[in-house]
Amino acid sequence: MYAAPSIQKLLDELERLPGIGPKSAQRIAYWLLNADNAVATRLSEAIVEVKSAVHSCVRCFNYAEGELCEICASSKRDSSIICVVSEPRDIPPLERTAQYFGLYHVLGGAISPLEGIGPDDLHIAPLLQRLADEDIKEVLLATNPNVEGETTAGYLAGLIKPLGITVTRLASGLPVGGDLEFADEVTIGRAIETRRVL
Amino acid sequence: MYAAPSIQKLLDELERLPGIGPKSAQRIAYWLLNADNAVATRLSEAIVEVKSAVHSCVRCFNYAEGELCEICASSKRDSSIICVVSEPRDIPPLERTAQYFGLYHVLGGAISPLEGIGPDDLHIAPLLQRLADEDIKEVLLATNPNVEGETTAGYLAGLIKPLGITVTRLASGLPVGGDLEFADEVTIGRAIETRRVL
Repeated sequence: MYAAPSIQKLLDELERLPGIGPKSAQRIAYWLLNADNAVATRLSEAIVEVKSAVHSCVRCFNYAEGELCEICASSKRDSSIICVVSEPRDIPPLERTAQYFGLYHVLGGAISPLEGIGPDDLHIAPLLQRLADEDIKEVLLATNPNVEGETTAGYLAGLIKPLGITVTRLASGLPVGGDLEFADEVTIGRAIETRRVL
Repeated sequence: MYAAPSIQKLLDELERLPGIGPKSAQRIAYWLLNADNAVATRLSEAIVEVKSAVHSCVRCFNYAEGELCEICASSKRDSSIICVVSEPRDIPPLERTAQYFGLYHVLGGAISPLEGIGPDDLHIAPLLQRLADEDIKEVLLATNPNVEGETTAGYLAGLIKPLGITVTRLASGLPVGGDLEFADEVTIGRAIETRRVL
């Protein structure tokens, strides 16, 4: 396909991004070519800045700019509960609910024998250390509701319950606003199994 | 929503891009955070480079790195035919067909009384100058098949036909591989109107 070398290079880099195919890459590239220099500069600088400014929170392994992430550093959070997630990207969706005010702990993945990821590859030892050092009353396991996430949650529950700490798990069931007609049988089965008394 | 300041800044910039909503922006931002520094640097540099290296071809107003775009500079193109398009982004889809080997001329928009864009706002005078200076036998009007594009094509046909140059227009009709059942009535009407004898 014809494109000036620098346009082709930008297209190649854009196509690496998740969810960006050739057509989206082309749309974005031509949009940037047409945009103010300032807009392109801001995007370019934001990419460089995020890579230099952001690293792992020393306490919970969330993305952080200081030594601690903004959640660990906040005095407004309930420091008696830790929500365990696989990746930093799982935190924003939980925060958007505005229903959780505790701390987090990022495992950096989930147990997956197929991919050769075992418990030792995750930040589980630092989690147990936190449970020993901090005054934690509850651990909410928020790994994904798939095979790897469930395996990881089961493994962690086995480690943490004996410490006398309440271990909870995000509920599985029908998505709110969803249709029973279009839900898969495993989700409906789980919703029946964990049905609530009204 | 919670995010470290530099992550939020990147999210804001990504959300400006066409076709990128909050969820896509978040997916891309977390992907970049997780990616090698080299990948992020290459993307950032490609954005800066494209803005500094690319400007308008002095002849056809396509994007160019040198004085002339690669198409105008090529000796392999048929210089007796000019394809007129609205924007530089319309050229790659035409090139991908590998069925057009002539030159291009980018108008920089289309006539749109509603948006206050008249013929004087487009690169029409330079097109007429090219028709006077170069040995052009055919002008293929490839503006979009919508109201603005048709208006622009009609206007240009009125100017160019009296010069004794063949003026053609991209065919409208059913998309190849499409279903008659799902085509809109205007497209089907046009396909009937411009039906071919077999």
